[in-house]
Amino acid sequence: MTTGSVVTATRKAIGFDIGGTKISCGVITDKGDPVETLLPMHTPTDPTGTLDALRTAIQELRGRHPEVSAIGVGAAGLIEWPGGHIRWAPNNSYHDMPLRRLLEDSCELPTVVDNDANVAAWAEQVLSSAPNYMLFLTVGTGVGGGLVLGGELYRGKSGIGGEVGHLIVDPRGNIRCGCGNLGCLEAVASGTALGRYGREAATADPGGTLATLAGDPAKVNGETVFAAALAGDLASRAILRRAGDWLGIGIASLVNVLDLERIVIGGGVAAAGDLLLDSARASLERYLFARAHRRIPEVVAAAQGADAGWMGAGLLALNENAGMPSPV
Amino acid sequence: MTTGSVVTATRKAIGFDIGGTKISCGVITDKGDPVETLLPMHTPTDPTGTLDALRTAIQELRGRHPEVSAIGVGAAGLIEWPGGHIRWAPNNSYHDMPLRRLLEDSCELPTVVDNDANVAAWAEQVLSSAPNYMLFLTVGTGVGGGLVLGGELYRGKSGIGGEVGHLIVDPRGNIRCGCGNLGCLEAVASGTALGRYGREAATADPGGTLATLAGDPAKVNGETVFAAALAGDLASRAILRRAGDWLGIGIASLVNVLDLERIVIGGGVAAAGDLLLDSARASLERYLFARAHRRIPEVVAAAQGADAGWMGAGLLALNENAGMPSPV
Repeated sequence: MTTGSVVTATRKAIGFDIGGTKISCGVITDKGDPVETLLPMHTPTDPTGTLDALRTAIQELRGRHPEVSAIGVGAAGLIEWPGGHIRWAPNNSYHDMPLRRLLEDSCELPTVVDNDANVAAWAEQVLSSAPNYMLFLTVGTGVGGGLVLGGELYRGKSGIGGEVGHLIVDPRGNIRCGCGNLGCLEAVASGTALGRYGREAATADPGGTLATLAGDPAKVNGETVFAAALAGDLASRAILRRAGDWLGIGIASLVNVLDLERIVIGGGVAAAGDLLLDSARASLERYLFARAHRRIPEVVAAAQGADAGWMGAGLLALNENAGMPSPV
Repeated sequence: MTTGSVVTATRKAIGFDIGGTKISCGVITDKGDPVETLLPMHTPTDPTGTLDALRTAIQELRGRHPEVSAIGVGAAGLIEWPGGHIRWAPNNSYHDMPLRRLLEDSCELPTVVDNDANVAAWAEQVLSSAPNYMLFLTVGTGVGGGLVLGGELYRGKSGIGGEVGHLIVDPRGNIRCGCGNLGCLEAVASGTALGRYGREAATADPGGTLATLAGDPAKVNGETVFAAALAGDLASRAILRRAGDWLGIGIASLVNVLDLERIVIGGGVAAAGDLLLDSARASLERYLFARAHRRIPEVVAAAQGADAGWMGAGLLALNENAGMPSPV
C-alpha cells in the first residue's frame, strides 16, 4: 500500500460492513491507514432503517472528513457486481435492494457494494501483501469466502460467485445446510456444525466437559466447543479437528482447480488457530492432486481482525475509483 | 472468429493433441478453418521419439504451408504455463520435459504448450462462441477440464490448475482415484467409474444384459455400459444417471464458487448425450446455491468433436501471438 516515487495526495473513503447484527464503519486512506472508526451500530430490522443508518453515518463522517472521495459497502448476501444490487440476503431484512444506486443518489460519491466476505478478502489481500492467487475463508456461524485470482477479486459473470461455503463436500452425509442443500462445506465445517458435533458428543457423554459447561447436552453450541477446546478438552479438540478436516477437503478441491498459493482463514472459529488449522493443513495435503509435483499452498490465520470488513470495503472503493480526482 | 472491418491476412498455425495412445495434428487458420489434417500417429513410448514425431510432422506441414506462423501443443499432464514445461504426465512417457523450449529451439516459431483439456476448452470457446464464463468437462477414461473465466483460459499461479476431475466430491465413498486420492470426481463419474459400477451390477445380475454382453461380469467395462445403455438396457442407463448425478455435484460446486454461465461436456462418455446430461442437469439444480435467485447455467454437449484438441492448440497459438507479424 505504499506509493511509488510519484508523490500523490492521500485519498480517503468511508467503509461499511453490514452484518446480520451490527454495522461497522470508518474512514480509511488509500495507504490502508484507518483514520476514524465509529462505534458499531445495531443492524436495523428493516431496509429503510438500514439505509437511513448508512446515510446518517456518511453525513457525520463527511462532516469531519470532507476530503472523503468514495464509499464502499460490504454486505452479507448475494450481491451483483458491479451494479451493487443486493439480490438476496437470508439473514438480513434487505433483499432486492439497489443499494449502490440509492447511496450514490443521496451522497453523490462513487460507491461500491460487494459481498462482506469479498471485502474482507480484499483487506487481507491489500493490507497483508497476500500473493496473487489467494482464497480467503471466513469460518463463523457460516462459512464464507472470497477469491483473489491474478491479484483481483474474482466475481464471476454477475458477481454472485465466491460462495465457497457451498462447495459440496459431503453429499452422502445427509446433513442439510442452512441454504437448504445437502453436503455443503458450511454444513460440516462452520460454527453451527461445531455446535451440532458438540451436542452429539455431549449427549453421548452427559458427564463430560461439554455437557457440564453448557448445563445440558442440548444447549451445547459452537461457542461451548470453542471455549472447551481452548481450555484443553480433548473431545472438543477432536471436534475442531473434524471441522478442520472438512475445511481441508474444500480447500484441496479449490486448489486442484484454481492453483492457489495461499489460503487465509478468518472468522470467529479461526481464532482457535492451529487447533483448527493443523488439521485443515493435513487434510489439504491428503486431498491435493499431484502433491509430489507441486508446492503445497500455505494455510494461515487471517492477519486482519474485526475491522477487515469496513476497511476492505473502503479500500475497494478507492481501488475501483483509482483514476478519479479527489473532489477537494 | 470473423474479423472486423479491417481486412487482415489470414494467419495459420500447426496444432497438436498428444494423447496417451495417439497424436493428432493439422493446420488451422485464425478464422478457425482447418486447412489440413494428418493421419493420427501412435504416441511413441519414449520422450525422444515423441519429440521427433512432432518435429517430423512440423517439417512436413510447413513444407506445404510455409506461411504457418505459430505452433500449439495440447498434451496430457501437469504443464506449467506459459513456460510449456511438462511437469508430470501419469499416462505418458514424457515428464519433466521443457517441450515449448525444445520445439522453439528446433523450429524457430513461437510455440505454446498447454494441457490437453485446456486446448479443447479453447476450441469450444472460440468455435462455438461460448459465453465468457464457461466450464469444459471432458468425460472419458478420466475426467478432465478447462475453465474459461472472463473470456480467457484460466491457469492459476503456475498453470497446473483446472483439474476439475480432482474436485473432492465423495470423501466418504472410500473409492480411490487413479491419482491416489479418495473421492475425486474422476473416481465416481469417469468411464472407469462406469466400468466399476457395471461390474458390480453384472455380478449382482449374472444373467443380465451387461454380464451377457461382456461374457463375464468381471469383463464389463465403461464401453460395455455405454453400449448397453444406448441399446436400451435399464440397468446401464441407471449407471449413466449415477455418473451424471456426480457430475452435477461437481458442476454445482464450481458454479457456486465461480458463477459460471455454461457447462460444456465432451469426451467419449458424453456421446451418451441426454442419457448422461439430464441427470447432471437435475443434480446441478439440486445442489446449486440460491437456485431461486439466479439463472441456472446451461449444461450442453460439446459441439466440437475429436479434432477439438489440435484445433484448439493451433487457435491458442495464434491467440497468444496475435500481435506477431507473419514471417511470410
